[in-house]
Amino acid sequence: MSEIQVKDLILNAIKNRKVNVLKELFETVPTIDIAEVMDDIEDVSLLLFPFRVISSEYTGELFAELSSEQQEKIINAFSDKDLIKLLEESYADDIVDTLQELPANIVSRVLRVAPTDLRKDINQLLNYAENTAGSIMTTEFLEMKNTVTVKEAISTIRAKGKDAETVYTIFVRDAKRTFVGTVNLDDLIFAKDDETLDDIMDRDFVSCHVNDDQEDVANMFKRYDLNAMAVLNKEDKIVGIITIDDVVDIIVEEANEDVAALSHVAPLEDSYLDTPAWRMAVKCIPWIIILIILGTFTTMALDRIEKTAIFTLIPVLISFVPTLMDTGGNTGGQTIALMIRGLGTKEFGPKDFLRIIGKEALTALIVAACVGAFGFIWFTVEQYTGIVTNEKLFVDGVAATIWNGKCWTGAFASQTLAISGIVASTLFVGSFLSKCVAVMLPLGVAALKKDPAIVAQPILTTIVDVVSLIAYLLIALGASHLFGIF
Amino acid sequence: MSEIQVKDLILNAIKNRKVNVLKELFETVPTIDIAEVMDDIEDVSLLLFPFRVISSEYTGELFAELSSEQQEKIINAFSDKDLIKLLEESYADDIVDTLQELPANIVSRVLRVAPTDLRKDINQLLNYAENTAGSIMTTEFLEMKNTVTVKEAISTIRAKGKDAETVYTIFVRDAKRTFVGTVNLDDLIFAKDDETLDDIMDRDFVSCHVNDDQEDVANMFKRYDLNAMAVLNKEDKIVGIITIDDVVDIIVEEANEDVAALSHVAPLEDSYLDTPAWRMAVKCIPWIIILIILGTFTTMALDRIEKTAIFTLIPVLISFVPTLMDTGGNTGGQTIALMIRGLGTKEFGPKDFLRIIGKEALTALIVAACVGAFGFIWFTVEQYTGIVTNEKLFVDGVAATIWNGKCWTGAFASQTLAISGIVASTLFVGSFLSKCVAVMLPLGVAALKKDPAIVAQPILTTIVDVVSLIAYLLIALGASHLFGIF
Repeated sequence: MSEIQVKDLILNAIKNRKVNVLKELFETVPTIDIAEVMDDIEDVSLLLFPFRVISSEYTGELFAELSSEQQEKIINAFSDKDLIKLLEESYADDIVDTLQELPANIVSRVLRVAPTDLRKDINQLLNYAENTAGSIMTTEFLEMKNTVTVKEAISTIRAKGKDAETVYTIFVRDAKRTFVGTVNLDDLIFAKDDETLDDIMDRDFVSCHVNDDQEDVANMFKRYDLNAMAVLNKEDKIVGIITIDDVVDIIVEEANEDVAALSHVAPLEDSYLDTPAWRMAVKCIPWIIILIILGTFTTMALDRIEKTAIFTLIPVLISFVPTLMDTGGNTGGQTIALMIRGLGTKEFGPKDFLRIIGKEALTALIVAACVGAFGFIWFTVEQYTGIVTNEKLFVDGVAATIWNGKCWTGAFASQTLAISGIVASTLFVGSFLSKCVAVMLPLGVAALKKDPAIVAQPILTTIVDVVSLIAYLLIALGASHLFGIF
Repeated sequence: MSEIQVKDLILNAIKNRKVNVLKELFETVPTIDIAEVMDDIEDVSLLLFPFRVISSEYTGELFAELSSEQQEKIINAFSDKDLIKLLEESYADDIVDTLQELPANIVSRVLRVAPTDLRKDINQLLNYAENTAGSIMTTEFLEMKNTVTVKEAISTIRAKGKDAETVYTIFVRDAKRTFVGTVNLDDLIFAKDDETLDDIMDRDFVSCHVNDDQEDVANMFKRYDLNAMAVLNKEDKIVGIITIDDVVDIIVEEANEDVAALSHVAPLEDSYLDTPAWRMAVKCIPWIIILIILGTFTTMALDRIEKTAIFTLIPVLISFVPTLMDTGGNTGGQTIALMIRGLGTKEFGPKDFLRIIGKEALTALIVAACVGAFGFIWFTVEQYTGIVTNEKLFVDGVAATIWNGKCWTGAFASQTLAISGIVASTLFVGSFLSKCVAVMLPLGVAALKKDPAIVAQPILTTIVDVVSLIAYLLIALGASHLFGIF
């Protein structure tokens, strides 16, 4: 059955209130697919229908997957009793995710009707700073003492496991309530009934603290191939756990943030399709305006340089300005992108500064030399073929090119090669400098604990543009004085 | 204990061949941390020492975490008997990852000594195309018939589970060997002994086929919060499974590829720190050269335009060219970045074309209007303050600015505002066009099943640069004819 047919089936079952068909669908179709169909339903009574007739084991998850707009409608339509039942079927971290998107009056209603234990958990999670381990952890997990036997542990799981976010990892504490190890469910299955958790637990666990950055937590999951991780408070006692499914979302979110920052967009809070045009514009405009203001330095440098004697005399030099500036930006942009992702995924940090700078300096030299050499040939081709034309070298009023054979006359060769040399040398200087600045800026910004993705690139472009233009003028002047070509 | 102290402890234990200390360390320190220390050991006999003395439950994982250079040294030093023991302790998918990095003679030695079953698995995995589900799956998993009881299932897990990559998900097949559902380990724990897998299994599972793209697989894990997924062949029989720890690596890899492509670097195969400078240069140079060649169109357009009567008469117009081109590139770049990540994470696809294009057209209009309006003000400020100067408006040989009060004279105001208007109008046209092209290009490229990240941006820059320059000339000519200002 195709995806569209399934969606039609779900919608029909809801619209025609076919209880049995709907029950069958909930058994066989992933809940998020059903939630997606329900996100498009306008009529509140239709929206509530599945919650009335479907087994409560599905409704908690269904509610969590709905858009915040639909969640708001449902909470408003629910009696307090319905709401309590729904909350009991949901995990505290899912409820918190929901509450963060909803208006204050709804939040206070939810907190008012929530059972005391759940309210405590929700309040605790709501109070951790955004993007910390505390804000993404769940407080429903299995914690057992290290003296518990395997048999006791399995019966505890049978009794309490349904309320925990994961039963695959059991967190073990000692008599002082300090976290000392983890036991995986498969270790229990393989162990003898009378062994204690202390006998079989992993002691080489990794854990994090409530205030750790979620990106660091995600990198630990990746590095150590974890399924769940304990979140500790200052006294090294477990206050919550983070599971791998939350981490997958964080990794995607952080990657999207890096791409957005490198492309000068403020990160979107909602999914792209759910963000209206005016809010997209708000995310886009500020950076464009900042970049125009930063670009003023470039405008000023170009305005001064184009009025110098040599540029007035050889206006063709101006034609190469976009190539010089684009190439400088592109070579530096490559390095910045590698730095940002390396720093973001903790592949390296500011401590590797010397090693990275040595390598990038060598890379920059090789790239700049190759690009400069290619540029010399290409700019010569551009002049010989008349892609750019030098008015000073017009013969009988027409541009000298290989097409009309006039390029072999007189001063053409020497002046053409001199121009290629000036532009190619500037390209070499600009590319080398750009890559060197591009490696130092992100590492420097990261060492100051700021986000390098946002700050580094606009500053790089401005520096490279202005320095390239000044180098261009100096190299042109130097060539003209030394060789007296123009 | 700090990270550095732990590293010293490991290194000392190996160097001084302290068996007990090393055993203790393997119990308490994550294996990847030990592997990282061992990556820096040059002496082969030291490198082999842990493999000789440490329990075989750790050596398979240790070997998999080492760099390919060290793996090669170890395989060369191992007798066939040692090698068989090592292979038996490793998962087929880890061995395949290792083999893909090693020289052909070592690969054939490994295949020669591997037990028949393992060799079959390795060969199968090696034959799937890179980046497909088949190439990342593992062939070690628990498959049971739907008529098996819970009690039988648990004893099978006890007997065979140690060889499977995960025991948390059991894959259920019917009498015809068709895959019909999954049972999670916790479902077994909660179920009664005499229930069959058919009674308790999830039927709303999702699965993939061997030739599916690994990025699509990763998106399914994210969407459905999976821990493991079945990989099916054409006859819908399971041939392998993919587990979430492999998916985390894929998500990071795909994000890095998007960032690299948007920044014009070929993706690195190794980690950044392990890639030597010359290879970095090889990854960087081709795109820079392609971009210089594409930039030729811009050079040509600028060369023609700067020689037109109006630009020769008002050379100050040239000073704004970098701003116009950078802003066009930046506004389009924002949209391309959102498109690339949205397409990459399957948030939307070419089927959403109409909805996206409508929204982006509106966004583009808002952004272009705001940026144009800001530009008009800012370019006026630039002229009044003398950041750019118009030679035609010099009074007594000096540039007219607010600083010397000469900007209030004669034609200054009208000509200054006319120039701001021309540049701002071009900015409006360029920004609007750039965002519109930026939304259509990636969707078009994706519809052709090519990677939009690589192809879209260079083409965008070229189109926007050339069209902006032509628009600039036409708007300037239009203004001059209509209002006769210059």
